[in-house]
Amino acid sequence: MTHALGLARRGLGRVWPNPAVGCVIVRDGRVVGRGWTQPGGRPHAETVALQQAGSRARGATAYVTLEPCAHHGRTPPCAEALIGSGVARVVTAIQDPDPRVAGRGHQMLRDAGIVVDTGVLAEEARSLQRGFLTRVTEGRPMVTLKMAFSLDGRIATAGGESKWITGALARRRVHAMRASHDAILVGAGTVRADDPSLTVRDLGIDHQPVRVVASGLLDLPLDGMLASTAREVPVWILHGPEAPVERREAWLRAGAELIECPADGTGLGVRSMLAALGARGLTRVFCEGGGQLAAALVEAGLVDEIAVFSAGILLGANGRPGIGALGLDRLGDAPRYCLKGIEVVGQDTLCLWHRA
Amino acid sequence: MTHALGLARRGLGRVWPNPAVGCVIVRDGRVVGRGWTQPGGRPHAETVALQQAGSRARGATAYVTLEPCAHHGRTPPCAEALIGSGVARVVTAIQDPDPRVAGRGHQMLRDAGIVVDTGVLAEEARSLQRGFLTRVTEGRPMVTLKMAFSLDGRIATAGGESKWITGALARRRVHAMRASHDAILVGAGTVRADDPSLTVRDLGIDHQPVRVVASGLLDLPLDGMLASTAREVPVWILHGPEAPVERREAWLRAGAELIECPADGTGLGVRSMLAALGARGLTRVFCEGGGQLAAALVEAGLVDEIAVFSAGILLGANGRPGIGALGLDRLGDAPRYCLKGIEVVGQDTLCLWHRA
Repeated sequence: MTHALGLARRGLGRVWPNPAVGCVIVRDGRVVGRGWTQPGGRPHAETVALQQAGSRARGATAYVTLEPCAHHGRTPPCAEALIGSGVARVVTAIQDPDPRVAGRGHQMLRDAGIVVDTGVLAEEARSLQRGFLTRVTEGRPMVTLKMAFSLDGRIATAGGESKWITGALARRRVHAMRASHDAILVGAGTVRADDPSLTVRDLGIDHQPVRVVASGLLDLPLDGMLASTAREVPVWILHGPEAPVERREAWLRAGAELIECPADGTGLGVRSMLAALGARGLTRVFCEGGGQLAAALVEAGLVDEIAVFSAGILLGANGRPGIGALGLDRLGDAPRYCLKGIEVVGQDTLCLWHRA
Repeated sequence: MTHALGLARRGLGRVWPNPAVGCVIVRDGRVVGRGWTQPGGRPHAETVALQQAGSRARGATAYVTLEPCAHHGRTPPCAEALIGSGVARVVTAIQDPDPRVAGRGHQMLRDAGIVVDTGVLAEEARSLQRGFLTRVTEGRPMVTLKMAFSLDGRIATAGGESKWITGALARRRVHAMRASHDAILVGAGTVRADDPSLTVRDLGIDHQPVRVVASGLLDLPLDGMLASTAREVPVWILHGPEAPVERREAWLRAGAELIECPADGTGLGVRSMLAALGARGLTRVFCEGGGQLAAALVEAGLVDEIAVFSAGILLGANGRPGIGALGLDRLGDAPRYCLKGIEVVGQDTLCLWHRA
């Protein structure tokens, strides 16, 4: 299952709206087939692994990171394929909460006389497939919030200078993290201040996450990086009902996709924003700020994972904060996260936290 | 030498004004003597190790983390003791910059026909003995700045609630760090806000670092923890020339030691504060805030090491910063630190940085 999870990981960021699944087929102690969900979400991991195993699948054990699908979608159900292959046993990590599956995959296998064991490395599988699980159970993608901080938690000097706080290896690592997400999300202020391209570069990776900007009034520069590249790498803009028609038309002409969301009191509601992204199939969103958007997501309880890069530099209290003000009265009300991993990246540190 | 450095470490925090030195004597591949600077600074490491080795020191190699002393202080010079013991070779990590030694220890050994090699694990030895080296070369103790942060670099909520951001194991670790320093330094605001006792507790350690408070006007509560325990564990108060006589008298009656420092424009000058502490023999100072004192030390380039505890909690931009405002215009001017160590402490992380 550990091996299957490693294979599943390869699909992260490129299989949405489907889950990134891994499958390993073992007969007589030897691996006879390995597969993972292919780019675009098809073929499924089981199909790939069974094809590789061929007739050696007969009597074998299949390890799958998620309950095999039981429904006819664009591909026939994987449970049927497993039954047809003659495997004797199927081991899964977790049940698929998709209402079209939800235990039916396991049941089909059992009904066909296959031994089914489930719950193996369930926690690891839930963590790896969290994006898909969140989309299915909550109707929104999971959100990873990235922050690149000075030692004292600042993202820029008082004057706004932020290039670069972290080193080249950390920035390269950010590109790799972008690549494992379906989309990158930033606020309009970040686009206006930094004119970022938000693409994955210099990693030899050929797919690009969708670039999503939240801008209530569509007040974004039409002569910037996003506008000039919107036909090469998708740009989706979440805007409010008040966004002027001429800006909508200009961005449509530039090649962006516009998604209108209802506004809440102070701006776009983050819940409706994420619901709109979930409805479009996104499972994993990588938020790179700015501070206001991050604070809104945190306050709404929508930040599932946090990646904190820290550089050995001090900027002081007048430096710019990475997360805007939160309306917290008591320490006990503060959102809590659990440590998931810690490592050294070049001269910086990277700590990964997930929601408690 | 690695073993000798490990022994030296045992003295940190309890041998000031002397250096924490370690010594290992090896004959025919076997350790025949081990010693480290004893509490209070005497006997020296070499004396202890030679006593343990006895006649087995003849023809042996002595590994010492610092050049043996060459001057008659309260004890005879260690170089003489080594010569008298009959060791054939002495390996040291670094030269002692104390002007009374400064190469004379090595020379005395060589003049007596002993083979001397130096520079072994020099960087590690400089790091471990940095407090003593800083006192001798700069006339001030080294400063370790400790910060206990939320993920986003805050030390308290907007309302000032800070107990507790980090977990029990991290707080225990802070006590161990206190014990390896000669003194703990805090600003007056921290004393007024938290009424801390600043002692080492629950570690089975019987010595206590000096507790130092910087308070220009001696405006500190006389009914707090520090005043009530000043006769048990030393309290030194750095104050300015304007501190009222009645407060001076009250604190002297409570058992504190008062150290008058010249004021600079905005308060006590941190350089003169540290010079006063260095003149009293302190080699390692552990600063636990508050933000203003930390910022003043950082701005003056006096923070040598930083220990950052981070807890999995978000407090937002209205939470209190750990380091006050720094007058930085450009990112390139920001003080830089290099990563020294990273670890998990309970549910929190601890990153150690030292000045670049």
